Amino acid sequence: MTSGTPPALAALGASSQRAARLLAGATSHAKNQALVLAAEMLVERAGEILDANGRDLQGAEAAGATPTQIDRLRLDPARIESMASGLTEVAALADPVGEVVEGWVRPNGLRVERVRVPLGVVGIIYENRPNVTSDAAALCLKSSNAVMLRGSSTAIESNRAIVGVLRAAVAGAGLPSDAICLVDDTSRQGALAFMRMSGVIDCLIPRGGAELVASVRENATVPTVIDGDGNCHVYVDASADLDMALDIVVNAKTQRPGVCNAAETLLVHAGVAEEFLPRAQAAMPGVELVGDEGARRVLPDIAPASEEDFATEFLAPKLALAVVDSIDAAIDHIQRFGSGHSEAIVTHDLMAADQFCAEVDAAAVLVNASTRFVDGGELGLGAEIGISTQKLHARGPMGLRELTCTKFVVRGTGQVRQ
Amino acid sequence: MTSGTPPALAALGASSQRAARLLAGATSHAKNQALVLAAEMLVERAGEILDANGRDLQGAEAAGATPTQIDRLRLDPARIESMASGLTEVAALADPVGEVVEGWVRPNGLRVERVRVPLGVVGIIYENRPNVTSDAAALCLKSSNAVMLRGSSTAIESNRAIVGVLRAAVAGAGLPSDAICLVDDTSRQGALAFMRMSGVIDCLIPRGGAELVASVRENATVPTVIDGDGNCHVYVDASADLDMALDIVVNAKTQRPGVCNAAETLLVHAGVAEEFLPRAQAAMPGVELVGDEGARRVLPDIAPASEEDFATEFLAPKLALAVVDSIDAAIDHIQRFGSGHSEAIVTHDLMAADQFCAEVDAAAVLVNASTRFVDGGELGLGAEIGISTQKLHARGPMGLRELTCTKFVVRGTGQVRQ
Repeated sequence: MTSGTPPALAALGASSQRAARLLAGATSHAKNQALVLAAEMLVERAGEILDANGRDLQGAEAAGATPTQIDRLRLDPARIESMASGLTEVAALADPVGEVVEGWVRPNGLRVERVRVPLGVVGIIYENRPNVTSDAAALCLKSSNAVMLRGSSTAIESNRAIVGVLRAAVAGAGLPSDAICLVDDTSRQGALAFMRMSGVIDCLIPRGGAELVASVRENATVPTVIDGDGNCHVYVDASADLDMALDIVVNAKTQRPGVCNAAETLLVHAGVAEEFLPRAQAAMPGVELVGDEGARRVLPDIAPASEEDFATEFLAPKLALAVVDSIDAAIDHIQRFGSGHSEAIVTHDLMAADQFCAEVDAAAVLVNASTRFVDGGELGLGAEIGISTQKLHARGPMGLRELTCTKFVVRGTGQVRQ
Repeated sequence: MTSGTPPALAALGASSQRAARLLAGATSHAKNQALVLAAEMLVERAGEILDANGRDLQGAEAAGATPTQIDRLRLDPARIESMASGLTEVAALADPVGEVVEGWVRPNGLRVERVRVPLGVVGIIYENRPNVTSDAAALCLKSSNAVMLRGSSTAIESNRAIVGVLRAAVAGAGLPSDAICLVDDTSRQGALAFMRMSGVIDCLIPRGGAELVASVRENATVPTVIDGDGNCHVYVDASADLDMALDIVVNAKTQRPGVCNAAETLLVHAGVAEEFLPRAQAAMPGVELVGDEGARRVLPDIAPASEEDFATEFLAPKLALAVVDSIDAAIDHIQRFGSGHSEAIVTHDLMAADQFCAEVDAAAVLVNASTRFVDGGELGLGAEIGISTQKLHARGPMGLRELTCTKFVVRGTGQVRQ
């Protein structure tokens, strides 16, 4: 830890490390009991949480927060129920800790195993959604990690109330309540000190906008997993079934435009652009379209797309269109503008599907399916703590397993090296 | 990439990225051909490499380098042979790229696979051993990664000569020679710019001393895997077979004291200290012993061990001794002073072995075996690019597989999300 860590934060870190050491040996039974108890207690103590949330909302309104910010911050009984059911869902997931990932015997008789173990202390730095507090805490607890939660100042009252409930539940199940700690210092200086707790935080995960991610990239000295942007593409190949392509494009763009696995750009092969683009336009009347020259030859009424448009994760009902002459041009466009999240091709051509899967460098590539499936639950991985767009450690939906690492366990009968 | 990247380095990064994209589709056959050709050419062109190395040695001597530094820098025909055989050994390893790590079918018919793919561009920043140049390049090439090699200024002539040979071999096998690039700028500013090539370098691995590692921790904005210190312990439990314990301690300390998996501290249970410590002292006459109060009660002639001693990776024939009252005390000592590398227990007690394996937080824990086995080759993992003491991505010996990541490949028949 750098010498600049404020004493209160350093003390919190030491408590987290002690809790992590105890948690490493916790049974699944105890962890699940804590999660189920926490779910019950969240609902029982909803009044107290809503009161705290009310104080945060008052503060945010007084500070001139936008309606979107207010909506993200707001809790209501339904949202608390949803946080509680998230906890019981995590209780139902398989425990990754203790899994023997692989093992073998060496010629000298040494038995080698790689065993899955917790990371230790996980840091989460996030913005004003109070539900992240319980979601992240649940996944960390289930994977036997202690968690240090550093939310925003706007949500501090809500987070204190939620963490208070969670800690009581953890203690109620006989586990150390310091397994879940809230960082009280929500200053910018405090955030920087948090990102630099080397030797204490084993993995830091930012959950928030581009500015937060950039600050973590720039300032963190602890290992990080970045939950990054999703500038996702759908490429409609010359050989695509255009009915299927239409379903996929409409779903990828409109089913939930504000999330990272929604499509932001539609690439269409020149051979089918004249037929497909008008159908796409007609099928998404509420979506603002902008296009390159090729797209505007087919749809002259749409505005031109700038380079900036192609590089932007709109997170809104807006779609950039480009017409490409070949699958190579489509892949080039994706490599240039994509953020390495989720990229889809619609095609009936086996060679095109294989080339796309091999050459597109992203966490997930999809053939004839909507980008919206790139999500821990939809892919069958269980609840996720984020979707990693980096390559180290975790790539794509990051679930319980990605909150662990492995340790070599080597058993011998007195072997020494020659 | 930050705007501060010098133009020459930025251009090199762009070349590496282009090469990485081509390499992703390279066959094992072509990669192996390049490695075998490189091995042949290193030996054929040994004269040219030795001449270059001679210039480096002259420069280092003129600059007042220590004998150890000179030895690390020096090449001779035998060392070049050894570099060449390293290349052919990597050619013989299985190719990790393309492995389907796991796969399943979702209820809606989506077929999900996790496929092993290269990281992309790997950066290596290292000190004056020229053999790292060929070892690291070989592992990166075999795992289909482009590599940017940033060695020290003292070895620049040797590195240029070696990289020239490797690039010719890569081109000779029909692969892009930019798969292997040497960073010419060996200034301190250049090193900082190299560590901050976000969006270009997918993984940075420092190979060198504590100062280099600290600088990477402090300054890198790209994802890193740290090849850290090895402050390794052997704990001799009350139930240990003392003959076995003696073999293991002597091997762990003296078989090669200058490497990271050598033991630096011996912990002995109080119940066997009086019998064991004099035997250990007698068995290692060339090893300087320092001890805590308990050890000095048994061996009054040895110097006291300071906290600093227990925290130090001696990398030399020196061993710190401590007598502990219980396995818990041994584990506490290891948690406090260990660097998370390799930790061994010698015991006949099953409960003690299990507790040690479960509670010691290190890349490798060993029961009744020497810490010296924690090495890619000895554990059966093949050649290694380093031994990671971090928890994210790679922990322990880092071989070909740790130079890859996975990508989700999702195949459907038109599925959209409801």
